[in-house]
Amino acid sequence: MEAAFRVLEVLEKTEGPVSGEYISNILSISRSAVWKHVKELRAIGYDISASQTEGYQLTKKSNRLLPYEVHKNLRTRMIGKKMRYFESTPSTISSAKELLATSDPEKLNGLVIIAEEQTGGVGRMGRVWVSPTGGIWVTIILKPLIPVDHVFMLTMAGAVAVARAIRKEYDLGALIKWPNDIYIGDKKVAGLLLELSAEADTIHYCLLGMGVDANISSHELATKVHGSVTSLSAEIGHDVDRAALLARILKEFESRYLLIEGQEYDPVIREWKSLSCTIDQRVRISTLKNVFEGEAIDIDEYGALVIRKDNGRIERIIAGDCVHT
Amino acid sequence: MEAAFRVLEVLEKTEGPVSGEYISNILSISRSAVWKHVKELRAIGYDISASQTEGYQLTKKSNRLLPYEVHKNLRTRMIGKKMRYFESTPSTISSAKELLATSDPEKLNGLVIIAEEQTGGVGRMGRVWVSPTGGIWVTIILKPLIPVDHVFMLTMAGAVAVARAIRKEYDLGALIKWPNDIYIGDKKVAGLLLELSAEADTIHYCLLGMGVDANISSHELATKVHGSVTSLSAEIGHDVDRAALLARILKEFESRYLLIEGQEYDPVIREWKSLSCTIDQRVRISTLKNVFEGEAIDIDEYGALVIRKDNGRIERIIAGDCVHT
Repeated sequence: MEAAFRVLEVLEKTEGPVSGEYISNILSISRSAVWKHVKELRAIGYDISASQTEGYQLTKKSNRLLPYEVHKNLRTRMIGKKMRYFESTPSTISSAKELLATSDPEKLNGLVIIAEEQTGGVGRMGRVWVSPTGGIWVTIILKPLIPVDHVFMLTMAGAVAVARAIRKEYDLGALIKWPNDIYIGDKKVAGLLLELSAEADTIHYCLLGMGVDANISSHELATKVHGSVTSLSAEIGHDVDRAALLARILKEFESRYLLIEGQEYDPVIREWKSLSCTIDQRVRISTLKNVFEGEAIDIDEYGALVIRKDNGRIERIIAGDCVHT
Repeated sequence: MEAAFRVLEVLEKTEGPVSGEYISNILSISRSAVWKHVKELRAIGYDISASQTEGYQLTKKSNRLLPYEVHKNLRTRMIGKKMRYFESTPSTISSAKELLATSDPEKLNGLVIIAEEQTGGVGRMGRVWVSPTGGIWVTIILKPLIPVDHVFMLTMAGAVAVARAIRKEYDLGALIKWPNDIYIGDKKVAGLLLELSAEADTIHYCLLGMGVDANISSHELATKVHGSVTSLSAEIGHDVDRAALLARILKEFESRYLLIEGQEYDPVIREWKSLSCTIDQRVRISTLKNVFEGEAIDIDEYGALVIRKDNGRIERIIAGDCVHT
């Protein structure tokens, strides 16, 4: 496919149609190779007209979430420099684990796995995460140099990144609901998931999964997903440029990730709090074994929510199902 | 091998020699099968005499750390009920991961992997852990129902278990040096390692690795291991019964593990502190990025050491290289 994208670049740079001979000369490939690559590009969603007299012309770019398109907008140092793309995969987290089974995590640091569709997408605690075509389903592989007890700061950084990217791109009032969800109004639009493999001294790797309901119709959401959910396209009335949004999310994430690696937790905590719809709310949180009720008063540098129970006692909770009461 | 151990049981139950015919009748197997199993038992270290006139007699039990021998002493409910035994493996942690790659962690909960020798034993942060024959090199697979931020309590429970078992079996003054080592006097005799695979809500699995220098000669220690180390046999002047010691360690571990699963952290913390040679010491701790100096004043319910720096500031540290200064 590498060569096909070089053909695409030539088509993008020219305004009108361009002859097969011209492309073949510029790229030093045969005219039949040009034709082969045009067919490859059409197969992944690019509309390219071809005429005997005028040559080739790109008439519409692909609406797939292709690494080529994301990279056009990407302004990062290490996150997403390498990507893997799947039309369909059980889940991007499981694809990441397959990669990690045979590769040094160090070498995969920052790699982003993208899928058009997940057939077995997972949310927190192994729950089903419906992931049809049109969403953004990615996993970032990370090998952060941080103490393992600060690892859930990465989920906070991811949540801030998604909320900020949505706000900047579409002027929607996205907020973070603890622990891992992004809401617009009272509807969920995105979620995050962090998996880690670690010792006390060393993080072997982290997998930050992100799912954004980008271009999914209200009808599809209503029939496929339980609960109160929305999508960006449903909110603003037309499809969004997923490649541009993902590039923005990755950039927003990277700047916070680098803060955390530099042990600068406070700016990320402050930002998370300013975007949180959970802080100052009365909450009921169900964990594996307990139910806590009280007022959410803070989040700490370990990513734990701090609540004040009615008896005045302070509890810190690393994760759980949270209801705003 | 299952059938061979049934033959062994018959030999253990009889005082003097016993005829092949007797064993063959009791177990409903052929006399040639009896002979085959006797040869198998000899191959794993059991001395069994055989005479045409008198029959078979067990004259010395194997000094290998066989599950059969550990189970004879084991008084646990779930830890070590299942075991896997390797004469030699790169590391019991890596053997555990191989098992987990194809099995549900739930089903492996409590399984103990034993190796006579590790060819690539690892300590904290991927460091080499010399693991010759004569030591106890085990990994316990755990799927604890605890919040992930309390996971390093398991290392504390393991350290308490090893120190207590050594104290009870041999009346040696074993103490815990933070974070993961067991000392006799100023020499290391054992170490622990915890690996985890987790989300914020769910621990997929933990691997608790334990290494005890049991029957390793001072000479072998001196030539193979850097630093100040000892072994149980070097301390007490003769080899110890590794199977009995391991059974005791597993029992001591289980009772603390069940406390932690029941969210009863305090008794384990108190015990850890009473066995710690680090608390109340001046320490210098090197972590990935920082060096902390001060007085070790406490350990918290997350397994973090709490130190008071000279400027009065309190720091909590989850892991690092610790020097008592």
